[in-house]
Amino acid sequence: MVQFAERTRGLKRSAIRELLKYTEQADIISFAGGLPDPATFPVDFLAKVAAEEILHNSLKSLQYTTTEGKRPLREALAKWLSEEGIKTTMENIVITNGSQQGLDLLGRAFLDAGDAVFVSLPTYLGALQAFRAYQPTLVGIPLEEDGMDLDFLRRAIREARRAGHTPKLIYVVPDFQNPTGITWSEEKRRELLKIAEEEDLFVVEDIPYRWLRYRGEPFPTLGAMDEGNRVIVLLTFSKILAAGLRIGALTGPEEIVQMIVTLKQGADLCGSSLTQRLAVRFLTDYDVRGHIARLCAHYKTKLEAMLSALERYMPEEAEWTKPEGGLFVWAKFPEALDTEKMLPRALSHKVAYVPGRPFFADGSGQNTMRLSFALATQEEIEEGIKRLGQVVKEELLALPLAERR
Amino acid sequence: MVQFAERTRGLKRSAIRELLKYTEQADIISFAGGLPDPATFPVDFLAKVAAEEILHNSLKSLQYTTTEGKRPLREALAKWLSEEGIKTTMENIVITNGSQQGLDLLGRAFLDAGDAVFVSLPTYLGALQAFRAYQPTLVGIPLEEDGMDLDFLRRAIREARRAGHTPKLIYVVPDFQNPTGITWSEEKRRELLKIAEEEDLFVVEDIPYRWLRYRGEPFPTLGAMDEGNRVIVLLTFSKILAAGLRIGALTGPEEIVQMIVTLKQGADLCGSSLTQRLAVRFLTDYDVRGHIARLCAHYKTKLEAMLSALERYMPEEAEWTKPEGGLFVWAKFPEALDTEKMLPRALSHKVAYVPGRPFFADGSGQNTMRLSFALATQEEIEEGIKRLGQVVKEELLALPLAERR
Repeated sequence: MVQFAERTRGLKRSAIRELLKYTEQADIISFAGGLPDPATFPVDFLAKVAAEEILHNSLKSLQYTTTEGKRPLREALAKWLSEEGIKTTMENIVITNGSQQGLDLLGRAFLDAGDAVFVSLPTYLGALQAFRAYQPTLVGIPLEEDGMDLDFLRRAIREARRAGHTPKLIYVVPDFQNPTGITWSEEKRRELLKIAEEEDLFVVEDIPYRWLRYRGEPFPTLGAMDEGNRVIVLLTFSKILAAGLRIGALTGPEEIVQMIVTLKQGADLCGSSLTQRLAVRFLTDYDVRGHIARLCAHYKTKLEAMLSALERYMPEEAEWTKPEGGLFVWAKFPEALDTEKMLPRALSHKVAYVPGRPFFADGSGQNTMRLSFALATQEEIEEGIKRLGQVVKEELLALPLAERR
Repeated sequence: MVQFAERTRGLKRSAIRELLKYTEQADIISFAGGLPDPATFPVDFLAKVAAEEILHNSLKSLQYTTTEGKRPLREALAKWLSEEGIKTTMENIVITNGSQQGLDLLGRAFLDAGDAVFVSLPTYLGALQAFRAYQPTLVGIPLEEDGMDLDFLRRAIREARRAGHTPKLIYVVPDFQNPTGITWSEEKRRELLKIAEEEDLFVVEDIPYRWLRYRGEPFPTLGAMDEGNRVIVLLTFSKILAAGLRIGALTGPEEIVQMIVTLKQGADLCGSSLTQRLAVRFLTDYDVRGHIARLCAHYKTKLEAMLSALERYMPEEAEWTKPEGGLFVWAKFPEALDTEKMLPRALSHKVAYVPGRPFFADGSGQNTMRLSFALATQEEIEEGIKRLGQVVKEELLALPLAERR
């Protein structure tokens, strides 16, 4: 028996990642996984600039780079973020291996064992995984249609403090959240910042889907509304450029960014120079706005196909979100329907989804599921949701009559 | 004041990395830094295969990959390592962001606060940084010409145990160590494995310079000699392919590799698909042995230039190692000569090195320095060591007479 550290107790691999194994079978229509559609990757452009950067700029593309990341990338990002109203400068940006590394380094910077982190119910699974390595107290806050239940949050912060769990971070995905697709209202955004200020906490605003809006108008980001230096913003190029480059970024108060850089040095010295150079070229030599407009048109059709198919094929006992962007729809069923237990039935009907429970810090949510519309074609979405509707109906029929609602 | 976690107290950024700022001035001849010579990067090959992989294999080069890393890369690595005699299989390999991430994840897997890690005096600075994030007790073991003082190690393990510091890991760089260039004898390698077995510890064998041997015959790696499943091997492509790709790997006992994969999932989900694909192509489509032979010829001339210049320009009070490979020579001066204090004098003479103290877990080594011969030309090495000899002579003359030896 290897004697591992205390922090590894009870750590589990992501249920989603393990599930991906099953969904690789060609005849399964999969709404599992959270991958962007590779059809959206600007392949020709990336092939051209990769060859150019390696051939003509090898000192900058193949040698080690600085821990905080390449200066031109931080400059271009500062410009990009300022267009979003997020007040930042090159000096307050650190490039990370996807936003996931940002989550890990924030856990490392802030969390002693037992410290309280407030997350919505449900929340992004990867954030739970990242924070859990630092043994915090994860406090789940109910998620409403327009964001967290903020009265609940206020009470939870005080209760945590009373119980000796120092409140440290509030983690939110305010735009088209993974897994629900829910977007926070402007009012709740404002209120959240007030709470952070009053309670002396930091807000981690994760915005991977921010630019994937297919309908309606965006609300300002928390980073843009932040007057009190309370917001740390995480972003990623995984959904707007290419996931396999692993380029993310973190920006926030200077003292925090400096600490993250120090911690990243121990964690991996620096990121890849090559993939950072590709991101620089994307931001400076490509029509990013036009690219994003094409992405949005592409995903919009898929989202509409899924919402329409759900309407047609789901039994009336089912509910689901109607997101205005992102990659996910979230469905909810009668309490007694356990989506983990239902999964084998779904797989036998050649359709896959992600059971919702792992997204809940408190272990609830057994009657929920996440559906990604990103990878399937319109026809597959139609057929897949049809199969899933059938699966749910069969599963409901197998329940005792009183538990079918 | 931001309330950071306890583990961040006293964490410092690497002195070396901060120093790199000064050495960027064009007129300074720098022996600081630990960067490989970019002239050794196979630029044409990488440009060609990068364009090919992105254009014709975008699903595999631009999408997310698995946490453990691409299967063909793990396969090719297993083959490569088995040629080195290291008994491993694809299943027991995880791809990391350079070997630095391997160090971080090992700290995370094994170390509770106070646990003992045994490192040589001096040792690789990045290992100290990685482990320190987990608040261990770092126990320094004197390094002799042929490896650690193993009697000292045995006593230190027992003392740590008596003092309540659970011994967990022994960290070694047995081939052309960073910073000293020292290589362990076969006898000491064997003895170390015996100690690990008797004391129920794991050995972390870091082999970034393994393939950079310019003279003499290699000894077997610890991984190859390991009968008791006690060795975790870390390797990197940074010195034999290109540092900016950030491709490293960890292999070892299955239970440990599985834990590392679980922890990596929380740390950054997965590495870059693109740079992993480039490493696959390097291992399968390139003349790796021929490439390494050219690398070795390239660095051999530089190492010889440095050793010869040291002989000619250093005062007799100086001592230095005579490595058979790697990227570094290590120099030692009379106790009273403080290489950190001497650095401004060196910079004013337009030459740079890394002061040795940060490489010592116990804060000693103020009279030592690391000299990298990788980046400078032969002419620069000659001129730079000439300048440095002058700097040392001046510094010695400034010392009280009794302290000059």
